[in-house]
Amino acid sequence: MQGQRNASVPSCSLQSWTEWTCEESKFQTIFNMDSREFRRRGKEMVDYIADYLDGIEGRPVYPDVEPGYLRALIPTTAPQEPETYEDIIRDIEKIIMPGVTHWHSPYFFAYFPTASSYPAMLADMLCGAIGCIGFSWGSASEATLVALLAARTKMIRQLQAASPELTQAALMEKLVAYTSDQAHSSVERAGLIGGVKIKAIPSDGNYSMRAAALREALERDKAAGLIPFFVVVTLGTTSCCSFDNLLEVGPICNQEGVWLHIDAAYAGSAFICPEFRYLLNGVEFADSFNFNPHKWLLVNFDCSAMWVKKRTDLTEAFNMDPVYLRHSHQDSGLITDYRHWQIPLGRRFRSLKMWFVFRMYGVKGLQAYIRKHVKLSHEFESLVRQDPRFEICTEVILGLVCFRLKGSNQLNETLLQRINSAKKIHLVPCRLRDKFVLRFAVCSRTVESAHVQLAWEHIRDLASSVLRAEKE
Amino acid sequence: MQGQRNASVPSCSLQSWTEWTCEESKFQTIFNMDSREFRRRGKEMVDYIADYLDGIEGRPVYPDVEPGYLRALIPTTAPQEPETYEDIIRDIEKIIMPGVTHWHSPYFFAYFPTASSYPAMLADMLCGAIGCIGFSWGSASEATLVALLAARTKMIRQLQAASPELTQAALMEKLVAYTSDQAHSSVERAGLIGGVKIKAIPSDGNYSMRAAALREALERDKAAGLIPFFVVVTLGTTSCCSFDNLLEVGPICNQEGVWLHIDAAYAGSAFICPEFRYLLNGVEFADSFNFNPHKWLLVNFDCSAMWVKKRTDLTEAFNMDPVYLRHSHQDSGLITDYRHWQIPLGRRFRSLKMWFVFRMYGVKGLQAYIRKHVKLSHEFESLVRQDPRFEICTEVILGLVCFRLKGSNQLNETLLQRINSAKKIHLVPCRLRDKFVLRFAVCSRTVESAHVQLAWEHIRDLASSVLRAEKE
Repeated sequence: MQGQRNASVPSCSLQSWTEWTCEESKFQTIFNMDSREFRRRGKEMVDYIADYLDGIEGRPVYPDVEPGYLRALIPTTAPQEPETYEDIIRDIEKIIMPGVTHWHSPYFFAYFPTASSYPAMLADMLCGAIGCIGFSWGSASEATLVALLAARTKMIRQLQAASPELTQAALMEKLVAYTSDQAHSSVERAGLIGGVKIKAIPSDGNYSMRAAALREALERDKAAGLIPFFVVVTLGTTSCCSFDNLLEVGPICNQEGVWLHIDAAYAGSAFICPEFRYLLNGVEFADSFNFNPHKWLLVNFDCSAMWVKKRTDLTEAFNMDPVYLRHSHQDSGLITDYRHWQIPLGRRFRSLKMWFVFRMYGVKGLQAYIRKHVKLSHEFESLVRQDPRFEICTEVILGLVCFRLKGSNQLNETLLQRINSAKKIHLVPCRLRDKFVLRFAVCSRTVESAHVQLAWEHIRDLASSVLRAEKE
Repeated sequence: MQGQRNASVPSCSLQSWTEWTCEESKFQTIFNMDSREFRRRGKEMVDYIADYLDGIEGRPVYPDVEPGYLRALIPTTAPQEPETYEDIIRDIEKIIMPGVTHWHSPYFFAYFPTASSYPAMLADMLCGAIGCIGFSWGSASEATLVALLAARTKMIRQLQAASPELTQAALMEKLVAYTSDQAHSSVERAGLIGGVKIKAIPSDGNYSMRAAALREALERDKAAGLIPFFVVVTLGTTSCCSFDNLLEVGPICNQEGVWLHIDAAYAGSAFICPEFRYLLNGVEFADSFNFNPHKWLLVNFDCSAMWVKKRTDLTEAFNMDPVYLRHSHQDSGLITDYRHWQIPLGRRFRSLKMWFVFRMYGVKGLQAYIRKHVKLSHEFESLVRQDPRFEICTEVILGLVCFRLKGSNQLNETLLQRINSAKKIHLVPCRLRDKFVLRFAVCSRTVESAHVQLAWEHIRDLASSVLRAEKE
């Protein structure tokens, strides 16, 4: 068994092969979940899921365990003999659930929503059963990276066509990408991975990237011999849901021959409502666009949808064609090989859940859902505005409210720490310029006005206690 | 509604906000899948899945439609009003299933297996319901890229520590990665994305990368002023399941200070059996290792497991810490922030399905499963060997048999085309040196000796017909 690696299968494994003839029947008897058993357990799981979601309000939204708690509760190796399904299910509540942050609790107001809906879950069950390997979709981070890589390849090829003596490395040293100082960290990360400089453009008083600041950076860098090639515009920033000025920035990108990528990960879903469509004005200048239906369009994680103006810009950056992946249709123009559009080769059949959701909700149902969330954020905003101890930090446009106690950052950090350690609701903070700010994001599919009211009362009470303690 | 983007919310949307007060109740009435309905539909879906998998043998393994067939069958826009669940389910069989390649049919012998098991499906249902955003896992392609990027960062920092005047771009121009000429295309792609040279090392007569060829390339490149920084060793190549000689290549990498990544995407699962562990000898030289439990370890797609020797090598290449992702435990050393280990930020809670599978099968059940597949491939091999018209092209070590008709490539291409257009079984080819070769991969969870026998009889009959036609 410890034989050295050599050209032929060592005799020990041929011996084992004979031994394995009895393994087949052993496999059947060892493992006892056949389709009959799956029918039973699957239905129990459906009930468990419905019970879980029906009762999610009753669970503490944030776990009350310390990191590492799980280590002592699970064995260090897989069991030799199969365990019973009952044992596993018992452990779900005993050891897994205590460590879970319940992202779908109506008291979860942190980050941005992650979608959840019954149709998407049903489709995902089917997707798992079909289990085919599709080729599409990525996360927003991946979409940004893919766009940056395509833009890099395009610019390098253009420049090499004009000056064939220039090496890729010599050009890469000069390439510069730009994004707002409010952009998601994944943009900076894409630059790091792509091996190119990435510069943060100072945003204006509304945390929006504007023409003047971008143009200034472009001119300065061009004068220094650098080559601008890529701009990421964010519609709905993670920190405060601000919008870069696409109508100003778009034309500059087009004039300069610079790739324009739009990251609308969260806000993109809102554009199904006509009244928010104005936020998208200037989209015609974009070379690529990404939004995450898994955030705010009721399609369970993960599902990002990326659009690109000219598909060959992507495929030329990624195309590889080994024989085992060739097929009779690839040159017909009839099909789109998404494996050339992304980093991984394989992907799940995610479109199925989007299809279920679109059909079960209809556009009207989805619009009503977005509007309900926006209404709830405005409701929270007006509660905050009624309390003179607090301030609203940025304009509330969609489902995010940035607010804080008037006063020091320390005061607000203490408030947030009190909120999150009480574990009744869950929030995350952001930093806007030099201010520590609390983010109230309307997230859950089941969040209602009552939850928002209760959350506000809770925050207000903790604020009173924090302010009292400060005075003492 | 067509208002320009400006600093404040336009009045039209404030008006709409008032209008939306009636939207909330509308949302409840428009959409009618509550948890009660989910309990009913979920149980129907469980039965549909069990019926689908019970009856999968009866479906043609490969679809009998032309690319683009779906376009005419689905509307170009999402419906305004919700549709009924019955409509959607009816369309599954009517318009979706006809386009599906049934990867879990026991007549699917193409590519490599993609895992499917009832416990993993049950866990995935729960994973969808919990819907939390975890931070780990990637595909094998992504694992290779991530390892390459980490190796690139490490080497650049080392060199800059010694010679601070060297720019990243100047160094990147000199970096070279190496892999066997049999490696998966994703390795070349990782080089392309990472902006570094990648060179193919000629493999030996067994399609294995050996010391001599690698050393020759390293010496030649170093003499030319280049900087070797990364080697990918494949254990179980996609084309023919050959194994690079890790015991020879590993020490060279370590001596040269070059990062060694092992891609064992398919074969990695087999190492749970002691009799295959010899194929892993030399693993101690590796800096990173990846295998895909979603291929051969009964964990439904997607689930790749990557190991890295020194975690800071990865995190230093990817670490970004915006305020909204900071948390109180990040400096405690108690938890591992996998978001610093990969390209996307968010990931699904995939470990749940691995946990279900390990517990429900036990190591013994999983071993028996691997052994059953290996036994079936040897069974197919011996059937091929009994027919003097055919030849076995590479040693059969795990679940893949590379075979062909003795004769021209054209003859074998015709045979494959006949096999795949008959749609009884599904195979993909590969090219080994100048030869067109057929790959018979044991894939399905439910494949038995009888399916292999039938597949062989079918191939033999088509071969007879192809050979007859050639003589005429």
